[in-house]
Amino acid sequence: MRTIVPFGVAEPKTRLESVLGPEERRTFALAMLRDILDAVTTAGGDPAILADAPIETEAVGVDVPVIVDDAPLTAAISGHVTEALTETGGVAVVMADLAIATPASIDRLFAASADVDLAIAPGIGGGTNALVVQDPTFTFDYHGASIRDHLAAAREAGLSVEEVDSFRLAVDVDEPIDFAEVLLHGQGRAATYLRELGFEIETQDGRVSVRRTTNGT
Amino acid sequence: MRTIVPFGVAEPKTRLESVLGPEERRTFALAMLRDILDAVTTAGGDPAILADAPIETEAVGVDVPVIVDDAPLTAAISGHVTEALTETGGVAVVMADLAIATPASIDRLFAASADVDLAIAPGIGGGTNALVVQDPTFTFDYHGASIRDHLAAAREAGLSVEEVDSFRLAVDVDEPIDFAEVLLHGQGRAATYLRELGFEIETQDGRVSVRRTTNGT
Repeated sequence: MRTIVPFGVAEPKTRLESVLGPEERRTFALAMLRDILDAVTTAGGDPAILADAPIETEAVGVDVPVIVDDAPLTAAISGHVTEALTETGGVAVVMADLAIATPASIDRLFAASADVDLAIAPGIGGGTNALVVQDPTFTFDYHGASIRDHLAAAREAGLSVEEVDSFRLAVDVDEPIDFAEVLLHGQGRAATYLRELGFEIETQDGRVSVRRTTNGT
Repeated sequence: MRTIVPFGVAEPKTRLESVLGPEERRTFALAMLRDILDAVTTAGGDPAILADAPIETEAVGVDVPVIVDDAPLTAAISGHVTEALTETGGVAVVMADLAIATPASIDRLFAASADVDLAIAPGIGGGTNALVVQDPTFTFDYHGASIRDHLAAAREAGLSVEEVDSFRLAVDVDEPIDFAEVLLHGQGRAATYLRELGFEIETQDGRVSVRRTTNGT
């Protein structure tokens, strides 16, 4: 299935700037991107990167089509999904920062889409982390509590919907506290990179946090 | 399946004290408890409350066995799971604050346990929100990053494990920010109560938070 993976090239992961330098943020964002591209491919998907600025395939480390579009996120996704839908029966959109997603969780997303117009996986905090749309009348809106808005848009358009109940698809990495999930559950390059940088789980008074023990390698 | 639901009667949900008064916290905790008992029952489970102090069945609002044990959480759970395992083939432990859990998500937990010694659902932040154990040699430890410790304990004991990948089982409600998930995805008494108290989703700069618009009813 054609799977669009939006990726911010210019200023990746600014909300991590308190714990990662600019080059580290870029490397970490690329590691997460590579992980999700691998998971999509292993699950039988056909990924394409939707980038807001040109990016070299060598930087990504895997040969995947890159669509460059500097429009705002919602407009860029909407345009390219609509375009792809004229060619194929269903198009997926999967965020690039789902650092603990596995092929099995992506496979559940694809499988859920078989009999419905919209399969959708919520993110923690109201986002929409992954979806498959079969119907070009669906209206995208990635701003704010997008899971609520996407479900309302589907309802208004009379589309059939299946929610994909997945922890691994619900976790996206925006802030340092999200590193806890990556360190506990991640199996790919992003988790390895954080460990290389010296991040580890810390438990105090029964609560879990993350600390950086070194300045990395 | 026998399903033990631990519930703190004495000081429920202290980390919500910045936004809820003592009586509100008690009512909210009971609403979540009632929701999870209903979900377990609908999924075919046979719930029992494991309480750290006596609690009236009338307060809970449903006729479910109550086991009172003021031992620390891990010891209390371990003792009563071991006891129940002598009578039956598998015992579940499901936390009382999984406010967006559904019968379908509990059913997935039960189904996952069919062929393994341990079925386990991680919580956000390293907790263990739900599990089913079939083997009395499993060692409980609910302190700190318990999902990591439980997986390690199962590995050391040579137990077969299936992780249950569920967003609805991963969300527990400890802090005010967790209300966002309840307001967005909750379908039961806990969600209704928060709405009655005047809590609603707020989106600012594309990020989601929660505000209380009134002092409730």
